[in-house]
Amino acid sequence: MIFKLFPYMKYTTLFLLLFVLTAGFSQSSDESTIRKIYDKALSEGKSYAMLDYLCNKIGARLSGSPGAAAAVEWSRHTMEDFGFDSVWLQPVMVPHWVRGQAEIGRILNSKKMGTVDVAVCALGGSVGTGPEGISAGVIEVKSFEELAQLGQKHVQGKLVFFNRPMDPNQLQTFAAYGGAVNQRGSGAVEAAKYGAAGVIVRSMGINPESYPHTGGMRYATGVPMIPAIAISTQHADLLSRLLKEDKGITFYMETHCQILDDAPSFNVIGEIKGGEFSNEIIAIGGHLDSWDLGQGAHDDGAGCVQSIEILRIFKTMGYKPKRTIRAVMFMNEENGLRGGQKYAELALKNGEKHIAAMESDRGGFTPRGFTISAPDPVRKKIQGWKGILEPYGLSDFSSEGGGADIGPLAPQGVTLIGYLPDSQRYFNYHHTAEDTFDKVDKRELELGSASMAALVYLIDQHGLK
Amino acid sequence: MIFKLFPYMKYTTLFLLLFVLTAGFSQSSDESTIRKIYDKALSEGKSYAMLDYLCNKIGARLSGSPGAAAAVEWSRHTMEDFGFDSVWLQPVMVPHWVRGQAEIGRILNSKKMGTVDVAVCALGGSVGTGPEGISAGVIEVKSFEELAQLGQKHVQGKLVFFNRPMDPNQLQTFAAYGGAVNQRGSGAVEAAKYGAAGVIVRSMGINPESYPHTGGMRYATGVPMIPAIAISTQHADLLSRLLKEDKGITFYMETHCQILDDAPSFNVIGEIKGGEFSNEIIAIGGHLDSWDLGQGAHDDGAGCVQSIEILRIFKTMGYKPKRTIRAVMFMNEENGLRGGQKYAELALKNGEKHIAAMESDRGGFTPRGFTISAPDPVRKKIQGWKGILEPYGLSDFSSEGGGADIGPLAPQGVTLIGYLPDSQRYFNYHHTAEDTFDKVDKRELELGSASMAALVYLIDQHGLK
Repeated sequence: MIFKLFPYMKYTTLFLLLFVLTAGFSQSSDESTIRKIYDKALSEGKSYAMLDYLCNKIGARLSGSPGAAAAVEWSRHTMEDFGFDSVWLQPVMVPHWVRGQAEIGRILNSKKMGTVDVAVCALGGSVGTGPEGISAGVIEVKSFEELAQLGQKHVQGKLVFFNRPMDPNQLQTFAAYGGAVNQRGSGAVEAAKYGAAGVIVRSMGINPESYPHTGGMRYATGVPMIPAIAISTQHADLLSRLLKEDKGITFYMETHCQILDDAPSFNVIGEIKGGEFSNEIIAIGGHLDSWDLGQGAHDDGAGCVQSIEILRIFKTMGYKPKRTIRAVMFMNEENGLRGGQKYAELALKNGEKHIAAMESDRGGFTPRGFTISAPDPVRKKIQGWKGILEPYGLSDFSSEGGGADIGPLAPQGVTLIGYLPDSQRYFNYHHTAEDTFDKVDKRELELGSASMAALVYLIDQHGLK
Repeated sequence: MIFKLFPYMKYTTLFLLLFVLTAGFSQSSDESTIRKIYDKALSEGKSYAMLDYLCNKIGARLSGSPGAAAAVEWSRHTMEDFGFDSVWLQPVMVPHWVRGQAEIGRILNSKKMGTVDVAVCALGGSVGTGPEGISAGVIEVKSFEELAQLGQKHVQGKLVFFNRPMDPNQLQTFAAYGGAVNQRGSGAVEAAKYGAAGVIVRSMGINPESYPHTGGMRYATGVPMIPAIAISTQHADLLSRLLKEDKGITFYMETHCQILDDAPSFNVIGEIKGGEFSNEIIAIGGHLDSWDLGQGAHDDGAGCVQSIEILRIFKTMGYKPKRTIRAVMFMNEENGLRGGQKYAELALKNGEKHIAAMESDRGGFTPRGFTISAPDPVRKKIQGWKGILEPYGLSDFSSEGGGADIGPLAPQGVTLIGYLPDSQRYFNYHHTAEDTFDKVDKRELELGSASMAALVYLIDQHGLK
């Protein structure tokens, strides 16, 4: 039996040897390229300087605003100056909402405290109260179910105060956000069904804070459009405390926001052409628009400069990709997703073949891993690279997910990947005046660029089949 | 054969079944207790409020200072108020160094820029120049080897400028620190051997910064004690650039620091007595002293309040430990390690049996894992809990290490564990005026307490044998 097996064993041994040698070589070449990517990002990186400009020279970039227009031109020039193979704009019409002068939120007639000014801001997309404002009694609820139980009888003419907090016990703050954000998105519609005059929504912040968080809200056809504001978590707690003792409190809100006609804008795209499979595209993106209160540093200036940085690193390393690598600055993620929809629509129309799209829209924080939306074999292939990436702090490859802007590519069968940084500090800044450049750590931002570049490199080298 | 095996199989099956049930029960009980620990820390935690007091009401706590004395009393009262079984002080004499009035660092005679004031501070433990200051030429070196090659001929009477940066390509910033910090610790001794008048050391910061980092330095018997200052990384780069064009630059340094007589101080210890193996001690600690420039928030107020918080969480959960759990606020880590030495000396003298000591002295940042110094079977046992801890972001159990203050327990065969948070931002603050309360994130701090409490719980339940 032994003798009979010998011939097979020889082939098997040879095959195994070849396999080990090939895998070994490829592994070590991958490892050394990835090490070079990190060195470039950490010792000669440009992402932090780019973000400095985008935040401190341009600032807030709400869709349709002068800041958004400036950011489009800045991204185009920046990518052209880095010498990418091609850089172009994709026209897209975007919603145009303006906040107007500062909002007023005021607790009136509190038996204990009299009149108290509280920190509020209009929610994005809301109609304004106009200069006359609204004064009304306040009904506090924690859920839409509670609201429905109260019904028109108790809600008619009142301000509905949605005060369900983000759950601090959630390890991932995005999960806590997911558990609370329907109050912001749909609170006005739900309250208006029962005749409410307006809504006050507890800010989507997980800690006690003195400042409010804005963010998108929607109206529904056939339901009256009532004004919606966010209140800081500290003042939400105060209002709730006062209401417990004194149901007769009234609240004054005054907002000057307006919904204007849609405005022209653009996605901005830069590309390095692939040498071997140039028709296979790997897109990496962030969204260029931001809310109007801060500088859009973590949300999502970080994702934009990281995406540009990946292509810049490849170029300065002299890395010639097999596949075509694109950096996409999506417009209008915050209040419409028109950029993401337009990008997917044109990809389909132009017969483009995206093998993967990756988004960074969870802030410029220290790396943890990637989320993956893909069929099982593709997911397993990506997870198989964990060993190479784990020394760089990338150990979490377990969750589903991509990103809002790349989501519209899903029907085209594109593998969607989300960059997953640490989530603990994100909701200190998200959609607030605090989302400024000084809240971004240079190394954390750079490690994000390098982490994504490393995975893009692996996909480029080995494909996803 | 089948029939013969049956009796054994029955026993085996029974055994396996029992094992699986027991393991299953224990696992799920561990998991639910750990979940409770995190809930306590994240929704009813006190670590952030404790740190607020320690930083904003007490502030800097250099050994021998009024701040250090206040911090001793504060920790004692805090642990007594939480109702720990016993709280006591361990007297220890500590070095007493004072900075005196603000330092001056000035580039003179630069052909290009004339006179430039630069950001400097005396290194801890240095002698002062006194009001007359020192003016001298500057010799820049990157290493002690380079210094030795230059020798007395070039160094005599000069200020030696140690300018080897922390390596930004190191993923772990502590590794980058380890590669540069001998310049700060031993630069003055090495330069004095060749007759230098003083030393200017590039700050131990990994980014371009406008402020200097202090930190400990040592003198050696028989070598002249020359004054040592740190210069901000940005001004180190400036000085280096100017020296390249103009070797004739002189530099003026003036420091007013003094080495005083040793002063009395204390370690502060709080304890919850074990119910089953009360003679087995698990100690968790941080160091209560800090440098004098900031508030000692990350270094190491965080570690102190986290250690207290662990015992407080156990107590409020009603968890009765099997073993004795101690929180230890060590005194004088920064410039002498006298507290850590005293603690180990008394443990030995009193015949105490520590089965583990854990230290948190890498800042109040988001959890990554633990470092372990222990024999292989113990290390493997701890690493075996990774599956329970990984959902909480604790995935790195691979490195050696404990902590400076618990190091003196090593000769007693104690398992040493270091809490390992993310390291990227630590050296933005370490030993600087920037190490203040506002640089600490509430959730990141709380997750640190919970992470350590979870591992302490597992050690308490299952031992380390």
